[in-house]
Amino acid sequence: MFDMRGETVSYDTQNNALVIIDQTELPNKCVQLSLKTREEIYNAIKLLKLRGAPCIGVSAAIALSVLANNSEARTKEEFLKEFDFNCEYLISSRPTAVNLSWAVNEMKNTLLLCKGKSLDTIKKALQDKALSIHSDDILRCKRIGVCGAELLKNCKAVLTHCNAGRLACVKYGTALAPVYVSYEQGNRLKVYVDETRPLLQGARLTAFELASAGVDTTVICDNMASYVMKNGLVDAVIVGADSIALNGDTANKIGTSGLSVLARYYNIPFYVCAPFSTFNKNALTGGDIVIEMRDESEVSEMWYSKRMTPEAVGALNPAFDITDASLISCFITEKGVIRPEDIKNLI
Amino acid sequence: MFDMRGETVSYDTQNNALVIIDQTELPNKCVQLSLKTREEIYNAIKLLKLRGAPCIGVSAAIALSVLANNSEARTKEEFLKEFDFNCEYLISSRPTAVNLSWAVNEMKNTLLLCKGKSLDTIKKALQDKALSIHSDDILRCKRIGVCGAELLKNCKAVLTHCNAGRLACVKYGTALAPVYVSYEQGNRLKVYVDETRPLLQGARLTAFELASAGVDTTVICDNMASYVMKNGLVDAVIVGADSIALNGDTANKIGTSGLSVLARYYNIPFYVCAPFSTFNKNALTGGDIVIEMRDESEVSEMWYSKRMTPEAVGALNPAFDITDASLISCFITEKGVIRPEDIKNLI
Repeated sequence: MFDMRGETVSYDTQNNALVIIDQTELPNKCVQLSLKTREEIYNAIKLLKLRGAPCIGVSAAIALSVLANNSEARTKEEFLKEFDFNCEYLISSRPTAVNLSWAVNEMKNTLLLCKGKSLDTIKKALQDKALSIHSDDILRCKRIGVCGAELLKNCKAVLTHCNAGRLACVKYGTALAPVYVSYEQGNRLKVYVDETRPLLQGARLTAFELASAGVDTTVICDNMASYVMKNGLVDAVIVGADSIALNGDTANKIGTSGLSVLARYYNIPFYVCAPFSTFNKNALTGGDIVIEMRDESEVSEMWYSKRMTPEAVGALNPAFDITDASLISCFITEKGVIRPEDIKNLI
Repeated sequence: MFDMRGETVSYDTQNNALVIIDQTELPNKCVQLSLKTREEIYNAIKLLKLRGAPCIGVSAAIALSVLANNSEARTKEEFLKEFDFNCEYLISSRPTAVNLSWAVNEMKNTLLLCKGKSLDTIKKALQDKALSIHSDDILRCKRIGVCGAELLKNCKAVLTHCNAGRLACVKYGTALAPVYVSYEQGNRLKVYVDETRPLLQGARLTAFELASAGVDTTVICDNMASYVMKNGLVDAVIVGADSIALNGDTANKIGTSGLSVLARYYNIPFYVCAPFSTFNKNALTGGDIVIEMRDESEVSEMWYSKRMTPEAVGALNPAFDITDASLISCFITEKGVIRPEDIKNLI
């Protein structure tokens, strides 16, 4: 059902549906959902059945096309009104997701360019745009993979953190793309996966997608990374990124910066894989990136069930941390390998 | 019920009982148990109601005295046979616990020295020895505390890992003793506590005992330590030790070595608190210390209930790691502060 050839999100044009894997059921069940209505799609994003910035963006684009094709509007005015409503409605499912707004705007611009044409032509243009956003994501990730596989060609094992794999994108992923491409090229890398507390994206999602693809995978607790590096079990650390400042400081899932310090101490390369869109023109350094603080209960209650800390004790729960540019060996992007010091000239 | 004055384990000589706090009920309930029979005591150790090397040792000594006082043996031969049986029986509850064997041997030697005396004299000698092992532990920890409090006197907050507090000893603990003594001296340190995956001794036990003592306590996931140090939230890291090699390499709970690397990078002192008995004459370096590998299910199943990794995926679960001597600022012992390079001369 989900193997090296599978896609996390796709456009079933025959049945006019957005097809996704329900990530809330992983890793115990792999359920594919075929979504057709506005409410189904809204809930899928809201309830995190879909997650990962690129995956949410691609899904929103496909969703707007599916809903346009389903429209019963008779007049163009009615159609445009409905389209605008769908845009706002989808954005409200996760208002802070940058890629969601980006994809919705791409679709809006597409419609603007053919506003004068017939409804059928408009619907066709929206569908073409959704399909191209979908295939662009695959292509971009594949390029990151090819570029990263070159760097990993003498590696036997790598360590990764959180989920920056195909489950966060359409196919290949970002941090895991070099692993998948290495496999396609015959280099069967072993992957150690940080479980990634508090929400366990590594244990649940990364371990699932790697194992589904036949990759030799071992989960560790986050605090075992030093043991794994000290004992020579990994040759590189490879992670994704949420936002990269112009000096190379990088925001990624909490725990990433600690790995970069360990990698430097143990003399292991530390790679950050990200599409070019992750470079953040509004941040000169990591200090300009705002860190989201999440609810304490994610730390103090074990997986939303049993309380694991005393009632009276508080917890800290930053969702991200900032990795110093000086600890990053290089960025692996769809346009090639970039050193932290070269970002400013390229952007 | 459990405050700064409380003891984790004590000898109720009036009722001839070993009194303990049932640690399996923490942090949600604080249950005190009064144990009198051989089977009750065996089960308390076996089922981890008691844990922490010093705590287990002290408990075993008190247990042997309680059982001796309870003995219905009429002849000395019968009494000695019963005593030997109790020794072997208690040791079998956790065969690898070094402090358990040590305490049992101390009691055996005490009996040997007065073997010729009356049964009442023997029982009195055993009771005196048990009480002195108990009070020695308090004194030793208090000395570690006084010595450490001196080092922490300009600190506002520290980070600790796992549980090396009073719950692992009788009172004060090792790594937490400097915190408690600082409090007694009026320096109200804030403590950040690593939750300490996979068994969450930090979240469950350390957070409980610190909060019970009125210490300002915040739990973090292990992977947040870099964030906490980078943002200047702690002035020192303070941990316990399971075994210290003669060159200063230190085995302690998994995750400790990573903290020491981070502390060096962020220029924060890294203190190891341990009684002198932790220096291991049989280990020249950390390479001579064998690391216990524990069951994968502790990592792959969330708190023994729900599986959090895919069935097909393995996990690594080393219980300890080795911290390089070069990353340790100093050892805080009951005999004062020791630099790693001075151990060989002192042992």
